[in-house]
Amino acid sequence: MKNKNSTLEVQTASQQDVIPKLENDLSNFHIATTSSMKGRGDVKKQTKLGIEVTKDENYCEWYVQVITKAEMIEYYDISGCYVLRPWSYAIWEFIQEWFDEKIKKLGVKNCYFPLFVSQSALEKEKTHISDFAPEVAWITRAGQSDLAEAIAIRPTSETVMYPSYAKWVQSHRDLPIKLNQWCNVVRWEFKHPTPFLRTREFLWQEGHTAFQTKAEAEDEVFKILDLYAQVYTDLLAIPVIKGRKTEKEKFAGGEFTTTVEAYVPINGRGIQGATSHHLGQNFSKMFNISFEDPNGGGKVYAWQNSWGLSTRTIGAVVMIHGDNYGLVLPPRIAAIQMVIVPVGITARTKDEQKTALIEKAKEVNNILLDVGIRTELDVRDNISPGWKFNHWELKGVPVRIEIGPKDLANSQITCVIRYSGEKRIIPIDVLATKCKDMLDEIHNSMYNRILEVRESHTKIVLEWSDFRSFLDQKFILLSPFCGRTECEDEIKKESVREEENDLSAPSMGAKTLCIPFEQPDISLPTNCINKNCSVKAQFFALFGRSY
Amino acid sequence: MKNKNSTLEVQTASQQDVIPKLENDLSNFHIATTSSMKGRGDVKKQTKLGIEVTKDENYCEWYVQVITKAEMIEYYDISGCYVLRPWSYAIWEFIQEWFDEKIKKLGVKNCYFPLFVSQSALEKEKTHISDFAPEVAWITRAGQSDLAEAIAIRPTSETVMYPSYAKWVQSHRDLPIKLNQWCNVVRWEFKHPTPFLRTREFLWQEGHTAFQTKAEAEDEVFKILDLYAQVYTDLLAIPVIKGRKTEKEKFAGGEFTTTVEAYVPINGRGIQGATSHHLGQNFSKMFNISFEDPNGGGKVYAWQNSWGLSTRTIGAVVMIHGDNYGLVLPPRIAAIQMVIVPVGITARTKDEQKTALIEKAKEVNNILLDVGIRTELDVRDNISPGWKFNHWELKGVPVRIEIGPKDLANSQITCVIRYSGEKRIIPIDVLATKCKDMLDEIHNSMYNRILEVRESHTKIVLEWSDFRSFLDQKFILLSPFCGRTECEDEIKKESVREEENDLSAPSMGAKTLCIPFEQPDISLPTNCINKNCSVKAQFFALFGRSY
Repeated sequence: MKNKNSTLEVQTASQQDVIPKLENDLSNFHIATTSSMKGRGDVKKQTKLGIEVTKDENYCEWYVQVITKAEMIEYYDISGCYVLRPWSYAIWEFIQEWFDEKIKKLGVKNCYFPLFVSQSALEKEKTHISDFAPEVAWITRAGQSDLAEAIAIRPTSETVMYPSYAKWVQSHRDLPIKLNQWCNVVRWEFKHPTPFLRTREFLWQEGHTAFQTKAEAEDEVFKILDLYAQVYTDLLAIPVIKGRKTEKEKFAGGEFTTTVEAYVPINGRGIQGATSHHLGQNFSKMFNISFEDPNGGGKVYAWQNSWGLSTRTIGAVVMIHGDNYGLVLPPRIAAIQMVIVPVGITARTKDEQKTALIEKAKEVNNILLDVGIRTELDVRDNISPGWKFNHWELKGVPVRIEIGPKDLANSQITCVIRYSGEKRIIPIDVLATKCKDMLDEIHNSMYNRILEVRESHTKIVLEWSDFRSFLDQKFILLSPFCGRTECEDEIKKESVREEENDLSAPSMGAKTLCIPFEQPDISLPTNCINKNCSVKAQFFALFGRSY
Repeated sequence: MKNKNSTLEVQTASQQDVIPKLENDLSNFHIATTSSMKGRGDVKKQTKLGIEVTKDENYCEWYVQVITKAEMIEYYDISGCYVLRPWSYAIWEFIQEWFDEKIKKLGVKNCYFPLFVSQSALEKEKTHISDFAPEVAWITRAGQSDLAEAIAIRPTSETVMYPSYAKWVQSHRDLPIKLNQWCNVVRWEFKHPTPFLRTREFLWQEGHTAFQTKAEAEDEVFKILDLYAQVYTDLLAIPVIKGRKTEKEKFAGGEFTTTVEAYVPINGRGIQGATSHHLGQNFSKMFNISFEDPNGGGKVYAWQNSWGLSTRTIGAVVMIHGDNYGLVLPPRIAAIQMVIVPVGITARTKDEQKTALIEKAKEVNNILLDVGIRTELDVRDNISPGWKFNHWELKGVPVRIEIGPKDLANSQITCVIRYSGEKRIIPIDVLATKCKDMLDEIHNSMYNRILEVRESHTKIVLEWSDFRSFLDQKFILLSPFCGRTECEDEIKKESVREEENDLSAPSMGAKTLCIPFEQPDISLPTNCINKNCSVKAQFFALFGRSY
């Protein structure tokens, strides 16, 4: 980790206009350290408030500092497990609230299936289990007793749920079944864990539906994918590309997988946002989810889907929107959308003036609360305004509202927009409308900024000779592809970067992010991008280094 | 299981007015059986729609039939684990929504801590672990690899959370900490499991708070207890008795436990509703959650609480309100509050008349939806009204609305109230108001009915000679008690019932349900209720057989 003399210097350098001089009264404040929990009692050391590295110079360290100093994550004494603190969990709650309402409108109902799965159920679908088996955690003991048979913890719930589906489906009238659960799952990754992105336990929703016809099932796959896209675009202010996964990348045991893929500007990598799978009749045949054809055609197996969205979303927000000053939250998922800080109170300020400022801050707070804006009024008098500015900036609050003597005199407030640093004066009589509009404007601008970066880093590449060089320049690539797994393996191998500076991106080759539904507006060449492949290209696939 | 010739006979006998003749078209319908999942593919047998035993004659079998046939629970192939189907999970969602909003108003924030806990953290507080150790499930293997150290699954999260609290608390300004999580916990019970009541995995919320002073902490304990009481009284329509647990029954490692206790009329047992614990400084000392006294008094340990409410609530609803016809849902937690069924359509009904009935049903449905009543319009034409009546009655929908030719002609609807069987005619022009009022009225009546039963089965017992006889008559007893654990053990032992007919209640002695905050309005006798005890009585304790 590269240490700066002081966080303030870093910030003052480029945000001079919005960062006032800080007083020396920071001593009472602390931010939890990122130390592991060993020797819990001893880690009560103070750490610096600000982010001590830039996103460019050490992305990995930057990420750790942002998530810990913004109070999103606390480290835990079991590797790959992390504490989701209220500041990050609130993002998940906003996503839950939005998505839950949407799927309920589609007729999906929530339920809860057990955490545990028997070995026999888990292993029923062979392709599926072979993908998950290496990461399954097993319970073998309870209290002092060894269990007769080891019990697995769900890595996903197809094999937990479908035996019940088999019982529930007797007739075509029992279909469709549309269930969802919000729960934890466990995948005991042995790779380097990363908070939010690769964790041994994570939270998600998993929808599991069964239909009488393939057409109904397929229709739902895309409806759900649209909702996932909206979670990214409408809540997280992150543009995504919708597409289908290749054979290599699709869900094990499923028929086809659709996905929303986001672009991470800092390292040019793709990140899978959420996936909606059509399972065909594969699981229904294994688990005997069947009914009599109402038209007399004998036994028919149900057509199934499963679809999931996880707390990985939070990691995407951090990586994609965060900057050198910390987290940057898009307004719709910010627990606090606007923080109100009285300023300009000095030792010489009269009590009367001070009271007036605080009263005005409260008034502004109430006006904003009344129109449904989530605010925080920070009138702590043991902490300087400058310190507060840093604190809320680090935590990514979209807008800071300052109210000083000049604002009071002019019946106005001063807004500072987190993502751009822009300052705006707003008269108090138009406060409510302006602030509501501002939040939408911030959302759109944040979205468009990322979209522009992504578009300027998306390239149609037809020649293998260009492939790696664009990857290394943080591009994602649209290239003609035959679609075969062997060929994809070879492309991955051939595109490994030789030099490796970026600790956050272990040397890796490109994989397909998806086969975008929206194909490039040029005719598809005959040749697959892989120079050694002689099979005809089937489509443009989107390639990139990936999470 | 005692089989009746037919479910219908049972129902017609006592609800003649509301159960019309059933047609013979039930064949397409099924209810999942309660068979274990072994040989999943083979269990597609039909079972009878109605409950085949009365609550009185075989309470245990009645319970199983209600929860399975009302589609609340599906059995699972791992003992002690059950599927919460949408019909029961919805109850949990209503509780969550209500309680979550209330605690957020108290400043509590949601978060998520890991499912896993290391052995060293788990064992830090000795009294605590000795209580939970026999039920802890251990992971020893991941994929094909044995773990270097076994990892426990949380039975509760004190030991998961408090190492983080120790890191976060540096100064008195870091307090209070008020966190809550909605999650699953695992207690590997070896006793006979019962869905909702004693399960190896269950869902709950656990709140964990830390304060600078004992007074603040204690104040919160009771605030939370009041909210728990309200969950029972205001949502579940179940009266509860608030009190403190005895030393024997309090939370292991805590200072004192407060509880809300409900009464189950069918067997006269008590059931613990939810508990709010004051932990004192016991855990904060073990985990070093400390700060410097701002008044210069040196190191101070935080004062802590923890409090939890679980899916056991759902079991209480089933046991307390259910009747011989199945589940009876109090309106505020019913996923469907009113079901609308067109009636009187026969083979001779003209299409025009049929259409008019269905249109009217839709109109009624829209009127009720508009005022926020959760309705279901059951216009399935392959199922007879009688069959629908049984189905929705079994599932406990508070009100059935019938619309037949006569109702159409008179611009009215016919309501049938589930819990009482009462029929009411309501003119359509006052539908919205009358229905909203009716739901509140039903809630209150259901509450009062249980309250009356409980009050008529609560007895102040001062003589040991009366103790067991009242217990056997399904009473809960207020008796003078010394408060000592040894004495409570002896009372339990001495009050075991000799004869045992009720399979649902294993032969058991009485324990204290709580020391009610509201003590009887008579002076406390000197002698403890235990005839062999010579220690002075400290208070009236509430004794009962218990879940």
